[in-house]
Amino acid sequence: MTSQGEPQEGFSTLSKVTGPSSWSRVSCPCCISSHIEPLVLIQLAENVQPITKQWIMSMISAPVKAGGAQLLVHPGEDMKGDMIVVAAPRCTLLRVTEDLGLCKTYQDGNMTAFSFEDRDNFCNIDNMQQFLTLAERQYIVKHELDSMRAMEDQRVPGVPAPKGKLKARESILQKLEKAGVIRNITPLHDQKLLSALGKQWYSHKSLWGQPLDSIHAYFGGTIAYYFSFLDFYTLSLFPPAILGLFITFFLPSANFSRGNKTDSEPTLPKQDDDQPSVSSYMVQAVFSMLWSTVFMELWKRRSAALSYHWGTFNLAEQFQEPRPGFHGELSTNPVTGRLEPLFPEWKRRLRIGLVSVPVVGVFLGLVVMGMAGFYFFERLVSGWHKASGSYFTVVLLYLPSIAHILYTNVLGNIYRNVALKLTEAENHREESSFDYHYTTKVLVFTFFNNFAVLFHIAFFKEDLPLLRKRLSSLLIVTQVVNQFTEVVVPFLVDRFLTSADRNLKEDDPEVDHLQAQGSLPAFPGLFAEYIELLVQFGYLSLFSCVYPLTAPLLLLNNLTEIRTDAYKLCKLFNKPFSAPVANMGVWQPAFEVLSFISVMSNCWLLLLSPHVKELTEDAGLSSSKVLVIAIIVEHVLIMVKMILAFMIPDEPDWVRIKREQIEYHSMQALKKQRIMRSSVDDKLPSKA
Amino acid sequence: MTSQGEPQEGFSTLSKVTGPSSWSRVSCPCCISSHIEPLVLIQLAENVQPITKQWIMSMISAPVKAGGAQLLVHPGEDMKGDMIVVAAPRCTLLRVTEDLGLCKTYQDGNMTAFSFEDRDNFCNIDNMQQFLTLAERQYIVKHELDSMRAMEDQRVPGVPAPKGKLKARESILQKLEKAGVIRNITPLHDQKLLSALGKQWYSHKSLWGQPLDSIHAYFGGTIAYYFSFLDFYTLSLFPPAILGLFITFFLPSANFSRGNKTDSEPTLPKQDDDQPSVSSYMVQAVFSMLWSTVFMELWKRRSAALSYHWGTFNLAEQFQEPRPGFHGELSTNPVTGRLEPLFPEWKRRLRIGLVSVPVVGVFLGLVVMGMAGFYFFERLVSGWHKASGSYFTVVLLYLPSIAHILYTNVLGNIYRNVALKLTEAENHREESSFDYHYTTKVLVFTFFNNFAVLFHIAFFKEDLPLLRKRLSSLLIVTQVVNQFTEVVVPFLVDRFLTSADRNLKEDDPEVDHLQAQGSLPAFPGLFAEYIELLVQFGYLSLFSCVYPLTAPLLLLNNLTEIRTDAYKLCKLFNKPFSAPVANMGVWQPAFEVLSFISVMSNCWLLLLSPHVKELTEDAGLSSSKVLVIAIIVEHVLIMVKMILAFMIPDEPDWVRIKREQIEYHSMQALKKQRIMRSSVDDKLPSKA
Repeated sequence: MTSQGEPQEGFSTLSKVTGPSSWSRVSCPCCISSHIEPLVLIQLAENVQPITKQWIMSMISAPVKAGGAQLLVHPGEDMKGDMIVVAAPRCTLLRVTEDLGLCKTYQDGNMTAFSFEDRDNFCNIDNMQQFLTLAERQYIVKHELDSMRAMEDQRVPGVPAPKGKLKARESILQKLEKAGVIRNITPLHDQKLLSALGKQWYSHKSLWGQPLDSIHAYFGGTIAYYFSFLDFYTLSLFPPAILGLFITFFLPSANFSRGNKTDSEPTLPKQDDDQPSVSSYMVQAVFSMLWSTVFMELWKRRSAALSYHWGTFNLAEQFQEPRPGFHGELSTNPVTGRLEPLFPEWKRRLRIGLVSVPVVGVFLGLVVMGMAGFYFFERLVSGWHKASGSYFTVVLLYLPSIAHILYTNVLGNIYRNVALKLTEAENHREESSFDYHYTTKVLVFTFFNNFAVLFHIAFFKEDLPLLRKRLSSLLIVTQVVNQFTEVVVPFLVDRFLTSADRNLKEDDPEVDHLQAQGSLPAFPGLFAEYIELLVQFGYLSLFSCVYPLTAPLLLLNNLTEIRTDAYKLCKLFNKPFSAPVANMGVWQPAFEVLSFISVMSNCWLLLLSPHVKELTEDAGLSSSKVLVIAIIVEHVLIMVKMILAFMIPDEPDWVRIKREQIEYHSMQALKKQRIMRSSVDDKLPSKA
Repeated sequence: MTSQGEPQEGFSTLSKVTGPSSWSRVSCPCCISSHIEPLVLIQLAENVQPITKQWIMSMISAPVKAGGAQLLVHPGEDMKGDMIVVAAPRCTLLRVTEDLGLCKTYQDGNMTAFSFEDRDNFCNIDNMQQFLTLAERQYIVKHELDSMRAMEDQRVPGVPAPKGKLKARESILQKLEKAGVIRNITPLHDQKLLSALGKQWYSHKSLWGQPLDSIHAYFGGTIAYYFSFLDFYTLSLFPPAILGLFITFFLPSANFSRGNKTDSEPTLPKQDDDQPSVSSYMVQAVFSMLWSTVFMELWKRRSAALSYHWGTFNLAEQFQEPRPGFHGELSTNPVTGRLEPLFPEWKRRLRIGLVSVPVVGVFLGLVVMGMAGFYFFERLVSGWHKASGSYFTVVLLYLPSIAHILYTNVLGNIYRNVALKLTEAENHREESSFDYHYTTKVLVFTFFNNFAVLFHIAFFKEDLPLLRKRLSSLLIVTQVVNQFTEVVVPFLVDRFLTSADRNLKEDDPEVDHLQAQGSLPAFPGLFAEYIELLVQFGYLSLFSCVYPLTAPLLLLNNLTEIRTDAYKLCKLFNKPFSAPVANMGVWQPAFEVLSFISVMSNCWLLLLSPHVKELTEDAGLSSSKVLVIAIIVEHVLIMVKMILAFMIPDEPDWVRIKREQIEYHSMQALKKQRIMRSSVDDKLPSKA
């Protein structure tokens, strides 16, 4: 909150240069202000005609009733330029804050769902820059732009017929983006806030602590949740890292094992000295199983607390307008009474169950087939090589790997498109639900792709030394690649590319600054960041018992990851829009599911360890009896994890109380309101 | 609802005989009525002094502020008699209806949470017999009696010191029951309604259909849910029953198998002809796995619809007063603002996780040990018998069985006490939560006890013919025993015992009728009924693939079960109190869990079937590879079940819409109310 001090100075440049008169007029008296803060930049295609630009600007500033967004627009340099700068009047900001269900500090100090009629009782209501965070204001603008709809069948002026035809209720922005009129829409940076944030964040001397509130204020919900989780996860890595270091360097049987490890021979079948002793195996396995549950449960509590703190625990997306891509029979929503498309839930579920799930299954099958093919051809080729040994066969040796990599990449690209189409066909009403289902599909596939080889080694080859070698090389290679792509490359790119912006002086026209911002690449989203963490977590929880150094290596990686992600976000990409969210979405269950799968894999790995095999052979147990015992142990461990998860409540007591208070008061209020209404009804007839 | 027509006549007898003046006075003008309906009978111990009776009566009729129940009392025959008849004034009924969060038909036709202030807009508000069901009125009386609390440290007049000492805030009723002053509290039957209901219900000619609404009106929520579930379950048994009959009588390999079955030799190791073919095995197994999921999902929808229909979808138990046994630090509830004991959730969860779960685990271990001991001694004794063969060893042969039965019974009794103590120590705030946790504990134990032997045969002996024999004899014996205990015995008892009441003529004093009602045994609760269904369901879903006749036999059993349970409830026991509930509580998850465990057992049974063994031997797979394949198949089936469960929404669309409407309107109302309140606040200072 403190990072937003004196915000009036940050955005005054544009109004100074272009004059407040160039902004579109405000109809509402309370919204007239000498300071207009440019929030969002719309970049048009270069060949867009002034009449089209004019029409877009008029729609953006038109009232909501007329299908507009009721925002303020500024033509940038002049009407011929390829950009539109958008700001928001106070009334629009407040109205949408209520629609979104955002909670703000009420006069009694509690976070309370904002209500426009009751606005005067909220703190900081007179200063929009303090009342709403920058990210919220920008998201609101985006939200309003997205909800612009054609009121009737019409044409976009200056755009030829097939592309420019708008049907009634069609989303104007979607149409314009599809037609290529709008190149992109980005929230604008506030350079002063940004450099202050950057100093606090990644130029920071100490190893620990991120300015999470400032991140939330500047970048918004989804991004703040990612960094909070990264923070929490890194902190949680300390216990397993210490245990891993202890097992590697202090336990006798593992002590000399690292010395005589040879990477030159890839698959030595007998390498008993190289394995940690059975007791350290077990300690590591049981510890990581329990640790992952405790970690996730504590994160849920943290997440609930953050959600209260950031005012997003009461988001009412199901009562808002549906997302632009949603279609269905136009009818009155029985809940809100608004006219909007409706689509029955059972149809969506049928489509998910009968279409999406089988298609995803087929793609997972293709991944397995690709791997099987790779192993088959590799064996074939190495057979040839041994038989003939010519230069030709040496080249051939690389062929299966290359083919497999190509296959995997092509398959991945096809899959992403298919997943998008499937999710669109599921026709989700809410944006968050769409994201949830799309992310789930991609995530399952990516995860499967990443772990197929390791699972193959662990479950079919049953080759622990190879698994350990593979895991360690994956971890170290990933480390190095990450360090390089996320630190070195960005730094060079920054020096080289963004110098265009650097060269601009403070007193250069604001328009040039804006254009410089638009020239950065779009932020690719958090999927890659989250999946990296999930895959890491998978290495750790699924297989770490065979390679105890996993946790220390991950800890090292995460400590740099925090800085590089922050630097990347602040400097190297356009600022992304970031919705207010109450949790980290599908990633939370993904981590939880993984933590349960880890029980299976750990039990299996224990079963495979030569020491356990010796023990059971000594006890004279048949291999299927041992397997049955392992299954029982697995179920007991799953039970223990479930009990542990039950024992740690998902939200801190104080959050639960706040939530119940709101429930209780709304129950009471509903009753009161009915009485009020019926007493009004009673009075009405007496007038007649 | 129609069964409540002309209710005034049913209870007018008491007021005729004893005169309305014998009832305690009503303070509220709207509650004065010439018809007072006796609802609940309190039976005192015979040696209770008139002064004590007088005090109890005064407390019951005292206002809530004074720690009383604000009900109407009648001394029965005279002040020396051992009973108190309780009725409820209109205001108390309405006030508690609101407290409970019951929904009633609003003037717009929707079920709406009742509000006392807004009472005039609810339908049937002028006639309490139509507005609230008999069961609801009686539950309200019970609820108010339970919430009587001593306002300060005091003594119960006429009861000696240690027993009669009441501490401040102690529950009066609990104390009096512990002190032996009150023998029991029963809701009164309405003979006319009861005989009408009985005719509709069990004297009914057609095989199908129960008057569920009348049952709900007369007996209340928990009982109506039991019968609705029984109804739905029986209907759902038709598909598996038809499949079972088809497999038994029409599939070739099973066709002649029933002919050469011999029960004289208990364990024939080779009996291949006796087994259904592998294909019928698989059909039966896969069908029963999918059927159980579809059945439970459809039941959830039915349950949600019933809950709306019966006005219990909005019960607000967490906002009510805590249950009488609840203790904690006396403090202000942060949600409702009432002064009451508070107990932190995390402490409760710690106790459950660290005390209750391990103790339950120990008892389950004792069950297993008992079984192991039984098998050990049986083998020992039969060894002796074979060696010596004297009369003495013949007697000894029975000893292990007898010892095991004794052990199981004693253990069961100890366990039930321990479970009660554990649940009390968990200190649940709500009655429903207490029931949930207590029932869970007993249910897990009972289930384990019932299935331990079958599991032992299936998983350790791996002896399918024995399993089939055991299952069929269990089913048939259970049938016969049930028929006998639930039809024949009750009928005889009814003829013999309740004749006392029959001999009373219509014009005998009402007091004698009351006394006759009090003489019936207390209803033992629904636990036994539900566990019977659960165990049945267990036979069906866990093992039915080895004995396809399970479903037809169960269907037969349930068709009679409905009648006998109904008859038992109406005629042979005191009427029980039955709380308004929104679902069948812990039994629903219990059935669901069982349906998932069934996947494991079915996969295992398929694995054991000799045909599958032959197949895998022919394919040359090692036994542990086969086990791994079985585990994979099991997980795929669990996935399919989960997808199926996801595809069938838990509540019908119309219920979801009603629920969301209420959510939306209360959100809106809360905002409106804040504005109202702050505008009042604005006006207040101007007065000063």
